[in-house]
Amino acid sequence: MSDLLRELDAVLEERKNTADAEGSYVASLHRKGLNKILEKVGEEATEVILAAKDVEHGGDRQAMIAETADLWFHSLVMLSHLGADSQDVLRELGRRFGLSGLEEKAARTAKQEQGQKQ
Amino acid sequence: MSDLLRELDAVLEERKNTADAEGSYVASLHRKGLNKILEKVGEEATEVILAAKDVEHGGDRQAMIAETADLWFHSLVMLSHLGADSQDVLRELGRRFGLSGLEEKAARTAKQEQGQKQ
Amino acid sequence: MSDLLRELDAVLEERKNTADAEGSYVASLHRKGLNKILEKVGEEATEVILAAKDVEHGGDRQAMIAETADLWFHSLVMLSHLGADSQDVLRELGRRFGLSGLEEKAARTAKQEQGQKQ
Amino acid sequence: MSDLLRELDAVLEERKNTADAEGSYVASLHRKGLNKILEKVGEEATEVILAAKDVEHGGDRQAMIAETADLWFHSLVMLSHLGADSQDVLRELGRRFGLSGLEEKAARTAKQEQGQKQ
Repeated sequence: MSDLLRELDAVLEERKNTADAEGSYVASLHRKGLNKILEKVGEEATEVILAAKDVEHGGDRQAMIAETADLWFHSLVMLSHLGADSQDVLRELGRRFGLSGLEEKAARTAKQEQGQKQ
Repeated sequence: MSDLLRELDAVLEERKNTADAEGSYVASLHRKGLNKILEKVGEEATEVILAAKDVEHGGDRQAMIAETADLWFHSLVMLSHLGADSQDVLRELGRRFGLSGLEEKAARTAKQEQGQKQ
Repeated sequence: MSDLLRELDAVLEERKNTADAEGSYVASLHRKGLNKILEKVGEEATEVILAAKDVEHGGDRQAMIAETADLWFHSLVMLSHLGADSQDVLRELGRRFGLSGLEEKAARTAKQEQGQKQ
Repeated sequence: MSDLLRELDAVLEERKNTADAEGSYVASLHRKGLNKILEKVGEEATEVILAAKDVEHGGDRQAMIAETADLWFHSLVMLSHLGADSQDVLRELGRRFGLSGLEEKAARTAKQEQGQKQ
């Protein structure tokens, strides 16, 4: 699962540059412009909140997961529209939490092979 | 970078279960409950939107990336609060886009080694 | 202009109770339920924010006013759905600001005429 | 209650122009600028949504009314920041619903007395 966001970045980048706004939802969002993309971000944030409240009261957890996927997806379209991508966000999260994904894992693996405790 | 969300899930899970709500922001969010977590999701969505509008007018792209990281982070805390995690969201995104990260990539690599076009 | 919200409450109350969900947007919102109404509140809040940012950069002030009208309107539908109305909100605002509109003002004027300090 | 919004506009206008940002919450919002005001609009919209969902599940209706008051209040601060006020919003709502508050109602009453159908 781990490189999925990178693959998704590539799909979004390709669709951003397609001329076929009719055939692609992503292309049509880019053509409509930033406000339309941000309306979708706000809309999906509200739907996440409603779905989470419904889980609190016995509602379907999968619906909340699907709304969160919608929110992340539209924030990726926004990042793409403004020249950034998922890796920028992950780098920022990694910095805050002292996590760094594969690179640091590789470093740790090397240390472990030297018999060190991580 | 690729396993960063999985590492972050583990950090969030650990902090969810810590007794030290004073020392951990995540623990204090869980203690305050779902409404407080969802207030943060809504707040961060607004800040993403404002930061993206500012990029449109020459503002700092890194600020928008940092706000998106805040939004994703608080949605991960929400997922954790309700018994889900980043992998559920990635699985949902993968299903929609016909992407599946490492597992599918492994399958494709195997096919390529057999001389097939992916 | 001053009793407009009261008139609007009456219109909303009447449409809430109409059977004609086809012919009335308000009736159709009530029939779809609270989540749909709250999605609209969240959506309109985002559109207010975007329109206000656009005013900051030379955009149309009337568009922002229209979006604010949409936001207030959908919050009135929400109040109506849950058995409250605009007067409840105004009463709350009045209490906070020591304002109380015409009726209480008339009462105060009467008191003042009796030589009392308000 | 009916002129309360007009009174509130006057209070907001006065506080907008006060130099005392320390002593006035409204003055401090104006000094911090549009983004801070819009963050509050987004925050309060989320709190309205959460409070309304809680009413759905037996929660306190007065809390929802108070959150709606917060939302309207911060949207009034936004309007004031950008040179508009509550009357602009009411005029827009009146136009949409064919309502026009006291003044036009007075005009209509006068017409009716002249035997005209409104």
